Amino acid sequence: MPATLMNERDLEFMLYELFDSESLVNRSRYQDHDRQTFNEVVSTAKTIAEKYFLPIRQKLDTHQPTFDGKKVHIIPELKTAIDAVNQSGIGSATADYDLGGMQLPPIIASAAASYLTVAGGVGMGYNMLTTANANLLQAHGSPELINTWVKPMREGRFMGTMAMTEPGSGSSLGDLITKAVKADDGTYRISGNKIYISGGDHDLSENIVHLVLARIQGAPKGVKGISLFVVPKFLLNEDGSTGADNEVALAGLFHKMGGRAQTSTALSFGEKNGSVGYLVGEENCGLKYMFHMMNEARIMVGTSGAVLAVAGYQYSVDYAKNRPQGRLPSCKDPQSPMVNIIEHADVKRMLLAQKAYAEGALALVLYGTQLSDDEHTAETEEQRQHAHTLLDFLTPIIKTWPSEYGPKANSLAIQVMGGHGYINEHPVEMFYRDNRLNPIHEGTTGIQSLDLLTRKVPMNNMQGYKATLHEIAKTIESAKQYNSLQEYTHKLSDALNTLNSTTDAVMTSMATKNIDLALSNSVKYLELFGHVIIAWLWLKQSMVATDALSHQPHQDDFNFYQGKLQAAQYFYRFELPEIELWSRLLINTDSTSYDMHSDWF
Amino acid sequence: MPATLMNERDLEFMLYELFDSESLVNRSRYQDHDRQTFNEVVSTAKTIAEKYFLPIRQKLDTHQPTFDGKKVHIIPELKTAIDAVNQSGIGSATADYDLGGMQLPPIIASAAASYLTVAGGVGMGYNMLTTANANLLQAHGSPELINTWVKPMREGRFMGTMAMTEPGSGSSLGDLITKAVKADDGTYRISGNKIYISGGDHDLSENIVHLVLARIQGAPKGVKGISLFVVPKFLLNEDGSTGADNEVALAGLFHKMGGRAQTSTALSFGEKNGSVGYLVGEENCGLKYMFHMMNEARIMVGTSGAVLAVAGYQYSVDYAKNRPQGRLPSCKDPQSPMVNIIEHADVKRMLLAQKAYAEGALALVLYGTQLSDDEHTAETEEQRQHAHTLLDFLTPIIKTWPSEYGPKANSLAIQVMGGHGYINEHPVEMFYRDNRLNPIHEGTTGIQSLDLLTRKVPMNNMQGYKATLHEIAKTIESAKQYNSLQEYTHKLSDALNTLNSTTDAVMTSMATKNIDLALSNSVKYLELFGHVIIAWLWLKQSMVATDALSHQPHQDDFNFYQGKLQAAQYFYRFELPEIELWSRLLINTDSTSYDMHSDWF
Repeated sequence: MPATLMNERDLEFMLYELFDSESLVNRSRYQDHDRQTFNEVVSTAKTIAEKYFLPIRQKLDTHQPTFDGKKVHIIPELKTAIDAVNQSGIGSATADYDLGGMQLPPIIASAAASYLTVAGGVGMGYNMLTTANANLLQAHGSPELINTWVKPMREGRFMGTMAMTEPGSGSSLGDLITKAVKADDGTYRISGNKIYISGGDHDLSENIVHLVLARIQGAPKGVKGISLFVVPKFLLNEDGSTGADNEVALAGLFHKMGGRAQTSTALSFGEKNGSVGYLVGEENCGLKYMFHMMNEARIMVGTSGAVLAVAGYQYSVDYAKNRPQGRLPSCKDPQSPMVNIIEHADVKRMLLAQKAYAEGALALVLYGTQLSDDEHTAETEEQRQHAHTLLDFLTPIIKTWPSEYGPKANSLAIQVMGGHGYINEHPVEMFYRDNRLNPIHEGTTGIQSLDLLTRKVPMNNMQGYKATLHEIAKTIESAKQYNSLQEYTHKLSDALNTLNSTTDAVMTSMATKNIDLALSNSVKYLELFGHVIIAWLWLKQSMVATDALSHQPHQDDFNFYQGKLQAAQYFYRFELPEIELWSRLLINTDSTSYDMHSDWF
Repeated sequence: MPATLMNERDLEFMLYELFDSESLVNRSRYQDHDRQTFNEVVSTAKTIAEKYFLPIRQKLDTHQPTFDGKKVHIIPELKTAIDAVNQSGIGSATADYDLGGMQLPPIIASAAASYLTVAGGVGMGYNMLTTANANLLQAHGSPELINTWVKPMREGRFMGTMAMTEPGSGSSLGDLITKAVKADDGTYRISGNKIYISGGDHDLSENIVHLVLARIQGAPKGVKGISLFVVPKFLLNEDGSTGADNEVALAGLFHKMGGRAQTSTALSFGEKNGSVGYLVGEENCGLKYMFHMMNEARIMVGTSGAVLAVAGYQYSVDYAKNRPQGRLPSCKDPQSPMVNIIEHADVKRMLLAQKAYAEGALALVLYGTQLSDDEHTAETEEQRQHAHTLLDFLTPIIKTWPSEYGPKANSLAIQVMGGHGYINEHPVEMFYRDNRLNPIHEGTTGIQSLDLLTRKVPMNNMQGYKATLHEIAKTIESAKQYNSLQEYTHKLSDALNTLNSTTDAVMTSMATKNIDLALSNSVKYLELFGHVIIAWLWLKQSMVATDALSHQPHQDDFNFYQGKLQAAQYFYRFELPEIELWSRLLINTDSTSYDMHSDWF
């Protein structure tokens, strides 16, 4: 079985045919680059993925980190692999030149990182969190903080975490109780407990830079009294070298179903004198800053959901093309040779579903990544603002849809492979386990749905909502020129109407009914919106494929574009109609869940 | 967190309120029993489950069996636990008195076994396979075979397997190539390779009795040339004691995502002189006999899917009732106390979905189990024949629906618990992994769907189909007396119409169109039928609950029955409408999957 990581042809399609990434070189930030340098970075990532991560992927899964009471032990090959990433510069590919970065567009960096994610499981998670941490500090930290902490993170000498969750308040950040006391020197003393801190301890870097949410003594209750601090594992000496222990103690490791290479830790801060913490930005604004990181992390989670779906799809396609078994129903002769299972219609259905989920999700996360670039580097302020509006609105969907449909795709990869999919000789069962975390971390699906309905939709007179629907309407308008796509333009128009009438009904319900009831089917709303967005992106992909097919491509490309059209058809026929059912529940303000009493369970 | 295994109250409801199990004591086979002895068996199983299996459940999962090249090693506590089951007699609870059994009704044995399954993961799988093996031999083996092999299996001294799958032909049994050569003494010499043989090697019993499918030299090709053999790991001496090695070699262990306590083996038979095999029944009839075991195994697989769903549901309900976090949307005061998460509408939705899946599936598998009893012990030949017809028809659905919806329920249990659901401190992630095997083994979902459409529906002039629909129609007729259930009687009537028109369309399509195309959405048909059956069983449960509520039950029972009604409402509002979409695809003979070329992937 060859090592099928990402689909190179499809990445090329996404970057250069669906999204016009080549034109990014016209922006001043990227003027040193061209398509060739973009491709070289992706290719370097692929090489590192195949050389360093793929050979240890299974070992990372079966040898999860251990804690001997003093130190965390991770298989040493991971450090070698991560060092290779750091040396290649891919770890800080998007950062400014003067911070050691390559000033690459995020969409290119994301394509490159996808190889590492797929080959390394969550081994890459350490780097990704570090990047997100550094990006936050760079945006909100003082020059001193940036100078002290961001540089070594960009260089890979230090790694970073985000320390939010506490034992008593998981998703409910406003209830966190970790304490910060101001010291005479202007720093703070932090004390409290955090759990599920990814990369919270390890031996992969000289130091670990925790971004910790805590409550300064006397701060208001709830989310308005939370501040953000840099709390390093080790304090630094005057010369910048790693110095004294900062009372960040590892209380224990969690053993996860998947993502096993990345430590998930319980940390105890400042049990004796308090850990030294450096305030980021202003007091009581911590959540705002953390959301900067969280929004980035949410796109990363969606991306993980998507690329693991791609990986499982690729792997199971390859298996199905090479595994002979059985005959078609039309063939009754037991003497005839067996067919490869890819010929069985139900196997094709399961592969098409995976393709529709995986490539739909990949298009979505790359679109979101491009928006996160556009909001900073697009040519005009209007374009930047527009990108910001769209990204801000779409973040719950970019995080959730790939997280929910990625594991479904992975489940189908297992099913295609039967018993072989269930054993660790093949990686699809690992993808299935790894991917199951994505609907949970960085805000569960339920929380994303409340964010969408209570904040994102009504915000600024529904500006984000309207901007999103306008984008879709524009695509429908263009697609009307394609005769062969009429079925989809009609169906997407209908879906937009369904979305609109559902939104009206839910907003009315939120304004006039018990708010707990009105929001009780919020996840169905998020699913509905997600399906419309994915259908939209499949229509876009179909337009590109139809154009390309009209130019008589060579056989491989012909097959590739036909596959795109067939996956689009699958999505429109098998998946999109679901929104009718969800819409009905929402329009009726169905009270089944709301009415349920806890004693009745 | 208390150890929540099965829901005792719900089992009582299933056995004595939904299905009238108490009346079984009127059948001569069960005349020594009464409700009290039934309850004692269930209670004994619960005690063994809590005492022997629950304490080692996690260890069984994290310490999977190992093979040192010579022997398989399993943690010794498992043998102690299995011995406790054997000593209790529960292992052969349904067998005849004169074979050491207790002559218990299968539905009672199944209720008892559910505790062991949930507490022991697949530790119980060894016993279940042994029982199925013994039952097959008892039905089709010669008196000598029964005397030699069945007795020690009933006593727990020997264990049994079913050895069907081969490396080159997984689901395609007709292509198996394991060879049997008749020897002068009337026995056979077996040689070939088998994979994924559950319990194929271990140190839990004195001997292992493999039931092996093989092809006698010169037999016809395909499924009509397959015979069934008893091939023990060790031959027996004249006095019945375990003797010489029979050339059944362990080639290796598979490492599964779940169900880790049960070895999954690659076996090599007869590499030197051939393993000695004893023919079961007649030559070339092996598949027919194996289907006896497979049908039983299919009900067991469905049961596993159902009870693991129940277990995850119970566990996550308990968690949700005790985990404070956040506030309702209607409460904006951060100073107010947090609510337990069971108060959040979306958590209620996820728990209701689990309840609808788990208790719907449990009702289905217990119904199937009762049918498997009725076909042998019902009073009249007509009743026995009727039960046989129904069971034979419903087996693909009994196997599949719980297997597909069980893992969905377990996924929701994880989601309810958030990060806590993803770590092995809690068992729900294990349920999720264990349950994922169920849509694969004993015939994948795809294979079940072809069995349903090509064999079960058309068979005997659609006798099974008609009998099933007649049962549903009878329930609808009775339910019309319940004013409060009108919504469901209407919806189920509509669903029956949908099922009928879809079946007509598919049968016509199978008769008139390309058969590969006509069958290409067979899984959607199976799903549709499954949903109708589960809706039917929820209507039945609702009728019982409505009756009970009219008799002013005490508070606990009031809550219990209200929960039943609410779960039924959930199923009818959130799940049953899916059939409209599946029906549309089937009626249109949607060709999306069929049209896909393998080169387009």
